[in-house]
Formats: sequence, C-alpha cells, structure tokens
Amino acid sequence: MTRFDDTAAQGALDRQAQLTKPPGSLGRLEELAVFMAGWQGTDRPRIDRAQALVFAGNHGVTAQGITPFPPAVTAAMVANFRAGGAAINQLCRVAGADLSVVALDLDRPTGDFTQGPAMTPAEVRDAMARGADAVDPQAQVLILGEMGIGNSTTSAALAAATFGGRAEDWVGPGTGAQGDMLAAKIRVVTKGLARHATTGTEETLSAFGGREQAAICGAIGRARALRIPVILDGFICTAAAGVLTRDDPDALAHCLIGHESAEPGHRRLIAALGMPPVLSLDMRLGEGSGAAVALMVLRAALECHNGMATFAEAGID
Amino acid sequence: MTRFDDTAAQGALDRQAQLTKPPGSLGRLEELAVFMAGWQGTDRPRIDRAQALVFAGNHGVTAQGITPFPPAVTAAMVANFRAGGAAINQLCRVAGADLSVVALDLDRPTGDFTQGPAMTPAEVRDAMARGADAVDPQAQVLILGEMGIGNSTTSAALAAATFGGRAEDWVGPGTGAQGDMLAAKIRVVTKGLARHATTGTEETLSAFGGREQAAICGAIGRARALRIPVILDGFICTAAAGVLTRDDPDALAHCLIGHESAEPGHRRLIAALGMPPVLSLDMRLGEGSGAAVALMVLRAALECHNGMATFAEAGID
Repeated sequence: MTRFDDTAAQGALDRQAQLTKPPGSLGRLEELAVFMAGWQGTDRPRIDRAQALVFAGNHGVTAQGITPFPPAVTAAMVANFRAGGAAINQLCRVAGADLSVVALDLDRPTGDFTQGPAMTPAEVRDAMARGADAVDPQAQVLILGEMGIGNSTTSAALAAATFGGRAEDWVGPGTGAQGDMLAAKIRVVTKGLARHATTGTEETLSAFGGREQAAICGAIGRARALRIPVILDGFICTAAAGVLTRDDPDALAHCLIGHESAEPGHRRLIAALGMPPVLSLDMRLGEGSGAAVALMVLRAALECHNGMATFAEAGID
Repeated sequence: MTRFDDTAAQGALDRQAQLTKPPGSLGRLEELAVFMAGWQGTDRPRIDRAQALVFAGNHGVTAQGITPFPPAVTAAMVANFRAGGAAINQLCRVAGADLSVVALDLDRPTGDFTQGPAMTPAEVRDAMARGADAVDPQAQVLILGEMGIGNSTTSAALAAATFGGRAEDWVGPGTGAQGDMLAAKIRVVTKGLARHATTGTEETLSAFGGREQAAICGAIGRARALRIPVILDGFICTAAAGVLTRDDPDALAHCLIGHESAEPGHRRLIAALGMPPVLSLDMRLGEGSGAAVALMVLRAALECHNGMATFAEAGID
C-alpha cells in the first residue's frame, strides 16, 4: 500500500516557513497543503483535475418503515443529478470538480438486514470493484458522496459494527425521521446487530450494505493505490469509509473528512476515527455536498502554498 | 439607515423550501442565502462582483516594544500585496474578488496611545472617509481586511474600551508576541485604557487608532448605505467593526464574521457581538484572508440557492 511521502511533506513544510506570513498563521490551510504534498508525493501539490463520485443504491431495509421518503426517490434524485438540478451539481461547478454519478442496480435493492445479509460476498466485491473502476487515475483529488433512501439506517449499523456502541448511539434523523420512525430505526439497527456478528470489512458490508457504501470503500482503496487524496462527506460516507479500518487501521490515512454533518452520529464517527473535519456548516444533505465545499478550502490552501512570495522574493528580512 | 428586507428574505426562504433536498439540510448555506437576500433586497441574491479592501496603517504604540516585527514591515507587505505575492492575493484570485489596497499615511504613524490620543478627531474622520470612498458601489459583497504592525495591540484596546474587561482578556500573541513582549502588550493596553475614557465610536478610534481601523468603520457604514453585505475578517477587523456598535448596536447587521481567528480575543469578540463565524480554520494572518475563504462558502450558498431545481421542476413529489 502506498504511504505518505515524508520527504515531499517536509519540502512543503519548508516552503510554508518561507512564505510572506507569520509562521503557522494560515492554520489549517498550511496543514492541508502539507497533507496534499505527502499524498501527491510532491512539495508543490496541485489540483488541476478534481473528480467527484456520487454512488447511489437502494436498501431492502426500507421495508421496515425507517425513512420518510420512498425508495423511488433514489432514482429520482439520480435523474436530478444527471439533469444538473441537485445541490452537488452546483457545488461541483463552483468548486471545480467533474461529477460522475454511478447508480448501482437501483431496481435491485439489497436484502433487508433484519431478515438476512444485505449482500452476498460476490455482490460486495462487485460493488467495490465498480467503485474502484469509477476512479479517474488522472484526478488529483477525489470527492466521495452517496444517495440512497434508507442509508442513514445502514450507516448506523455499519458504524456500530465497526466502532461498537448501541444502535441509539448511531441512529439519527437522517432525512427527517422523528418520533415513532426514529424509534423504528433504532429497533431495526438493534435487530440487525443482534443478527449479524461481523469482523472484517467485506463481512460487515455483506451484513448491512449498501452497494453505494461498498463502492465508496472500493473507490477509497483505488485512490490510495493511485496516491489520490480523498475528501469524505458526512455521516453515511464516513460510516462506509470507516468499515475499511476493520481490515487496516491505516486505510483512511489519505482521506480528509470534508465537514462535520449535523447528523448526530457523525461527531461520534469523527471522534472514533480521530480525523478533524475541514468544515462545520450544519449541513446534512449527503451527495458529497460537504466534501465539495471542503474542496474549495483545499484549493485556497494550495493557491497560497504555490502562489505566495517567499520573504526573500518579496525582499523582506 | 437601510434595513434587512424581510420580504426578500421570506422569498428566499420559500424558495429554499422547494429545492430538491430535505428541508434545512444545507444548514449554514441556507442561512447565508437568506442573509444575502435580505441585504441585497432580492429573493435571488447574486455575487457577480465581489470587492476586497485591505487597509494599511502604522502605529505609534510600536515604540513600546509590543511586536516582533518592525513597523517597516507594513509598507513592505503593502508592496507585496501590490506585487501579488501575499496570501490575500491568492485567496482573492481563487475566491473571485477584486482586491484594492489602501495604504493610509504609512510614513505618518498614529500617536502612541500610552502618551496621548492616537488620532485627532479630524484624522479619524479623514480615515473613515477614505474607507467609505474606497467602497465600489457596484460590489455585491465586500470583504474587509487590514495590515498594520502593532494593530493587534490597538485592537485589544478598542475591544476592551467597547466591550469592557481587562487588557489581559483581549491581548494575545498577534504575529508572535510571547513572554516579556506579551506582558508588555498587556501593560501598554492597561495604560492606554487608564488614560482614555471613551464613549462613542469616533472618540474610541481617536483614543487608540489606527487609521486602517477607522477606514474599516467607514467602509462598513458606506456598505450599509449601499445595501452591500460585508464579510469581516479576524480579530483586528472585528475589533474595529465592533467600535461602530458604540454609536449604534445594529451597525453590523449587514456583516458576517468570515472566520474565527486563532487569536484568542477573537472568540470573545464573537461572543460579545453574538455573530457566529462562517469558518473556523485556525487562521490568524489578517489581510482579509479568512474573509476571502468565507466568500467561497458564500458563493457555494448562492450557487445552490439559484441553481438547484425545485421538487416540481425535477418531477419529484
């Protein structure tokens, strides 16, 4: 597996120390430049090509009445992505990312995890491969997002399986579950956790799904091999990514969490992973929307890193 | 004085409720769109023209040994701004803002506020007028920043005079004061506060300066008259803006605080003003740098607001 390039990162740190500003005064922007340097393997990292990948899937567990929107909304939103009408379309345009949407067998929902496994091992591997194949090898940063009615429920199950805790620690409103529906989500996740004992990454994805979350895992692994830094989105994307740490605690070293979602479980995931988010804007939409806004901050960081004069260049002692 | 346009803001809120996302799921981005609508006076606010103004001044109080950089650095950094080598140049380019730098009599520092007033009333009015005159009436948003060796010390005095508290509540390292130098900053601000009893805006600016901070006040007032929303930067910019609230508690209603600076007094200013910052990136550079990054988030907010499809347009029930 590729590793962080300490030499390139040190080169970036050395450059930051010479730029016309008090040392450290660009804060997180300096850290982001060094992170990008280490993963791109150059002291002058660039983003000429940014890719955004949004994976979509459907979930058998929606039969349990755990979401205010019907599963048909997944396909409708995929159509909206393709027509350019969703938030992620606007955010990719303004942040300068090329958006691809990968719909994963929307007419074939995963199994209801309260009744059996969500996916067969072959289905997991297929979804992971489709995620990996979607990564543009020329991209210099990759934004990941998802769409799938019911996937805040599968995410709570994935997070609990990976990091421990009870269903109620991880279940939140998602797109708007309240009262009885929120209670149903907790019951469903509790039942799923009792049914499936899991250890590794593939086994966990097989138990709970969904296809879009397996695809996110596949894309993260492929990006690592290609030394492409990744920006994760909110609760659902991070819960999926977290499952990779069951096989390799270092699996997300090339990833940033773009923002802290308002979905309550996200803060817990962030703490479990020890990955401070770039932004905290009270967003909870998914689609990669928070990650796309974070890309703008990453661009700001690299513009400063590459474009600023050094003290010597500016003739300042 | 112009006021927030509730009708335009309600129109923007109504539109947000129809866009293809769960209600409220864009969080702060929705609030920013509504804020812009209310101040621009249209339910479809735009940023075709963004102006960034950086005001620079020098400070007699630097004679008291309160900063690690000599006053000559102010002019050197202004030259760096004009040559395009500073952080704010890169950030304005990536955020799409037109940068103007206004150097205010750099060869004529303000008076040392431990010995007497920093400026005469006429000098205060002149600096405020130059700030006001610098505002582009065609701008749809205004970013404010500053440069002035010594101005974290004047800012601590302005903040203490405006919001109360002791010098040590407001003094921080600025560009890097530590140990004896930090203690000197506290002594100097304590001495200044004992010397000058102030009540109104002009009187406070006259007591402590600096010219760049008076210019920021003038620009904020002019922007208000023109209905141009303003993005404030960090500690120094916010301390200057805060002085306006001595004459009118509502004076900053058209302003956002772009980011929470790492300079410790900024958090206290934010609390005193009750204005939650857009970003928190551990930056502490000044120049308008944090405000420029916040402009990117504001652009993201308006791209979503204006570009997204409604549920009806997308054919989703």
